[in-house]
Amino acid sequence: MEELKQKISQEGKVLSESVLKVDSFLNHQIDPVLMQKIGEEFATRFTKAGITKVLTLESSGIAPAVMTALQLGVTTVIARKRKSLTLIDDLYSAEVHSFTKQETSEISISKDYITSKDNVLIIDDFLANGQAALGLMDIVKQSGAKVAGIGIVIEKGFQPGGNQLRERGIQVESLAIIESLNGGKVKFKEEVSI
Amino acid sequence: MEELKQKISQEGKVLSESVLKVDSFLNHQIDPVLMQKIGEEFATRFTKAGITKVLTLESSGIAPAVMTALQLGVTTVIARKRKSLTLIDDLYSAEVHSFTKQETSEISISKDYITSKDNVLIIDDFLANGQAALGLMDIVKQSGAKVAGIGIVIEKGFQPGGNQLRERGIQVESLAIIESLNGGKVKFKEEVSI
Repeated sequence: MEELKQKISQEGKVLSESVLKVDSFLNHQIDPVLMQKIGEEFATRFTKAGITKVLTLESSGIAPAVMTALQLGVTTVIARKRKSLTLIDDLYSAEVHSFTKQETSEISISKDYITSKDNVLIIDDFLANGQAALGLMDIVKQSGAKVAGIGIVIEKGFQPGGNQLRERGIQVESLAIIESLNGGKVKFKEEVSI
Repeated sequence: MEELKQKISQEGKVLSESVLKVDSFLNHQIDPVLMQKIGEEFATRFTKAGITKVLTLESSGIAPAVMTALQLGVTTVIARKRKSLTLIDDLYSAEVHSFTKQETSEISISKDYITSKDNVLIIDDFLANGQAALGLMDIVKQSGAKVAGIGIVIEKGFQPGGNQLRERGIQVESLAIIESLNGGKVKFKEEVSI
């Protein structure tokens, strides 16, 4: 997605050979017009997949997931990292390790919102080692629903998550794939989809 | 906002005389079409306020804030509850106590995204004791920016936050104000704005 790549080139900050900061439009400050276009792009790429539900993980996945769900005419479910007092129903849960935050969290969703009849599109902001995506897939599997595909805003192509998911036959659509962050520069790979 | 009130009446679950669960469309599962209408409504109510930035708190405020920012043609800043490794700049921080979660968190934003020139609309999903709103106002004050107003999806009118904020002369626009949750029923108050 050309507009996203331009934004990353202009505003992304390369903090190390593995860390890209996109706080100015995706993670901390959000550009809603870009999010709307990202939602339209995901909806286009999965238009024939018969999606019934969009699933993401709080909190950076929420904006692109809501915009995608709006375009697809379905609802979004936000997996939570911790339980709150108002979430008392039975849950589907999985563990997710974040290498960025160096911690393992339990993510969960209420059993009310994904059922065995659903065809779920997983959306997330970043894909690196694939831990969040695997945790979300685990939750979908527990519900008996089907994973229709995974939509990622920025994939770190030099980390193994994307390829591992594609090797399992999952349709992974990444709107920008980064080949390397070496020398403080963002180098993009061409977009790949199965 | 009539459509929101209908949704609360149909799908809201009264868990106690002070706790209303709206997980089916606002907090856990998100209805993106309703969020879009909520964004339009906030934008209409603050259309003359000259908003330059929408500020919210992760994670339930994100969907209504992004939709509002989209309508107003500005960006949204998401105050975070914890610091992450990629947020290394100087921060504005405040403490927020959540009575629902029975914990105090530090919320913060990067100094990069709100400056003294900004006119900030604060958006949140719920207003009860006003702790989150006060924390967000504290952050705006630290930046030297102005608080243009506060937009709340659901205000618990039987708790003191809304009136305390209005008494300070702040424009608080709540799309649904709940007068009571007694007897397991949601009773609405008419919408109030200064």
